[in-house]
Amino acid sequence: MTSGSLHEATALELARRLDAGETTSERIVQACLERIAAREPTVRAWTHLDRDGALAAARRLDGGPRAGLLHGIPMGIKDVIDTADMPTGYGSPIYARHRPPSDAATVALPRAAGAVIMGKTVTTEFANRFAGPTTNPHNPAHTPGGSSSGSAAAVADQMVPLATGTQTGGSVIRPASYCGVYALKPSFGLFGTFGVKPNTELFDTVGVMARSVADLALGFAALASVPFAGAPKGEAAPRIGVCRTPYWDKALPETQHALAEAASRLSRAGATVVDVALPADFARIQESHSTISGFESVRNHADELRRHHGLLSLVLREKIDEGRHLSIDQFRAARRHAERCRAGFGAAMAGYDVLLTPSAAGEAPAGLESTGNAIFNGLWTLLYVPCVTLPGFTGPNRLPVGVQLIGRRFHDPALLEAAAWVDRHLR
Amino acid sequence: MTSGSLHEATALELARRLDAGETTSERIVQACLERIAAREPTVRAWTHLDRDGALAAARRLDGGPRAGLLHGIPMGIKDVIDTADMPTGYGSPIYARHRPPSDAATVALPRAAGAVIMGKTVTTEFANRFAGPTTNPHNPAHTPGGSSSGSAAAVADQMVPLATGTQTGGSVIRPASYCGVYALKPSFGLFGTFGVKPNTELFDTVGVMARSVADLALGFAALASVPFAGAPKGEAAPRIGVCRTPYWDKALPETQHALAEAASRLSRAGATVVDVALPADFARIQESHSTISGFESVRNHADELRRHHGLLSLVLREKIDEGRHLSIDQFRAARRHAERCRAGFGAAMAGYDVLLTPSAAGEAPAGLESTGNAIFNGLWTLLYVPCVTLPGFTGPNRLPVGVQLIGRRFHDPALLEAAAWVDRHLR
Repeated sequence: MTSGSLHEATALELARRLDAGETTSERIVQACLERIAAREPTVRAWTHLDRDGALAAARRLDGGPRAGLLHGIPMGIKDVIDTADMPTGYGSPIYARHRPPSDAATVALPRAAGAVIMGKTVTTEFANRFAGPTTNPHNPAHTPGGSSSGSAAAVADQMVPLATGTQTGGSVIRPASYCGVYALKPSFGLFGTFGVKPNTELFDTVGVMARSVADLALGFAALASVPFAGAPKGEAAPRIGVCRTPYWDKALPETQHALAEAASRLSRAGATVVDVALPADFARIQESHSTISGFESVRNHADELRRHHGLLSLVLREKIDEGRHLSIDQFRAARRHAERCRAGFGAAMAGYDVLLTPSAAGEAPAGLESTGNAIFNGLWTLLYVPCVTLPGFTGPNRLPVGVQLIGRRFHDPALLEAAAWVDRHLR
Repeated sequence: MTSGSLHEATALELARRLDAGETTSERIVQACLERIAAREPTVRAWTHLDRDGALAAARRLDGGPRAGLLHGIPMGIKDVIDTADMPTGYGSPIYARHRPPSDAATVALPRAAGAVIMGKTVTTEFANRFAGPTTNPHNPAHTPGGSSSGSAAAVADQMVPLATGTQTGGSVIRPASYCGVYALKPSFGLFGTFGVKPNTELFDTVGVMARSVADLALGFAALASVPFAGAPKGEAAPRIGVCRTPYWDKALPETQHALAEAASRLSRAGATVVDVALPADFARIQESHSTISGFESVRNHADELRRHHGLLSLVLREKIDEGRHLSIDQFRAARRHAERCRAGFGAAMAGYDVLLTPSAAGEAPAGLESTGNAIFNGLWTLLYVPCVTLPGFTGPNRLPVGVQLIGRRFHDPALLEAAAWVDRHLR
């Protein structure tokens, strides 16, 4: 592997080469920077690129002992997450000149593990709907998805092997599916959200994007600050429940095909594959999600509303205006409903190791204004369960279509094990 | 009431006088500033006092239409909460020069409602244990409690009628009890925590301190951004469960006396008063609280650990070091236990409108180094239920001892109604 192609490698492959003395972090960073220089005018994944800082960090790491799990590995950080040494704009002109006083938890931990933070990736406005300039690396006329637009595009385009995103509705899984990469949205509360500008505190979950299941496991260990047991081997065929969700009528043909095809291949490969329906009560999850998010938006954006009203997008102001009409009783009812669903989900999964379900309604839609529909994601985010998207299918425009695996809450390592088995049999 | 004694009035009384044109916000702020000037050398409640800014804001409000519920009312903000126009130090030398880019949700909302933010009140280091310089206004040789030390002392000492605190264990209710003021720790998730430096994100709850139940209700409406239905009338005698908690052996004689005396007076006044025991499983709540908080501390303080290790207090470093040894399995087990207790709490409260329970183990201990024991608070914080402390009793050193009322989760207004009835019959 030449220096020039180091940007194509996964993080674990790079770690192996670094350990073996076959390359240096500086060469890896240089290769990523070259890739970015070549492709950024089209992809527009970055709001800030710290060329000099990244090279300096790489040289420092090359000259020292192994720092940790991500020693010398380049990484992108979604710009809704604080970095002490780089501007952090939250996707809003209000924060164009903001420099946070500290790294977010999910920046400080990978840094402590030796990651080289390359820069900040494009986010939609405050991780809501108003889109940034990023294009889909597979076709610049299509959205990369959002709100973690830049991270999904940067990983897909081989600019960095790892990047973080945040998901409140479908902001990690959906763009990863649209861009054809792997992603993990962990169980709520496992990754610290300190330093993440909130969209909806009761849902916001930091996630990780990569180009293999093994790299998701590596990123999980580094970001959760837990030991890494090695790449998931995925030795046992999981018991798979195929879950079309209450929103199946929103699934486009390519998503319907991907789910059916995946179920069939996995069954042939030896997995138990059974259709599973969620309890009837779950059909209202989208509504509860939207009530909780709307209620919180009035509070979370109180400062911007008071001091910078004119700098908020129309679409965000509309969400907040709807939130203003929500009473404490409606908020309570939505939260109680969410909790009942969380408590009931264990029973819905009884007998299955994972659920297989759409990652998104279809391939990435044309145009950059909308980042697509999160209908197949919000319910799992509200349920606090871990989600993985795996690439492997395509839509009518030859754009990527992923499938999603859902695990038991807090059992993220088990989900990654199952994902490794599934991924091997889908590729 | 002369200008000189305006600082003694409650917020609702001040609002009435402002509405009637009997005084101005400028005069109120001036009276509070004079009180602070006289007492601050002893009480040391403030890390930053914005004299000129507060007077300017008061004049602006005096010259304009009624802004909202807190029009012209002075307020203190705990210094673990972000303010865009004042330094915010989080109780740590690491952030001595920090100026946040925006107001926290619980600063922006009262400001939008017309509150005059007087300054920032002393917090322990990152709302953990390492104490600041604040003294108990009733006796400067005793702690005011913590972590919301300055807010409790400032409200008790009539420097401001309202102030905010944050509670992860017992950081609102306990200092309020030690200082002899009223406080509300609302249901988790009702007040936005955006802009609060996290101690433990799964527990951190902003609360409000005041000198009457009616002011707690006013503060609740302003901080939750919900309509204010007027001061709670407390017309119906509540059904009261007396809950000694699994930690009763930690209650000092003055707390035992306060609880027994309150139960007896309330029963004579016409309330149904019955002893209630929590399910056996609840005895482990303190342990689960400490596991969750310890696990999170490693993540939440990752940046300070990496870059400013020597500036963290020994007591915080010890907490974090213990947190490092916690596995994801232990964290999961503790969170599951917490959720089971939350789900089971409704049944434990069946038949009661409120629980009556200690606010603290006793009166404020001597010395400023320890802010006292949160043993009677952590369980309610973990349960996410609303808590009110009411003053009314004293200990062997003539220092205040409060009693605590617990409500149903999300039913904070009902708790405040019951608190109004109880308070009337305890005074």
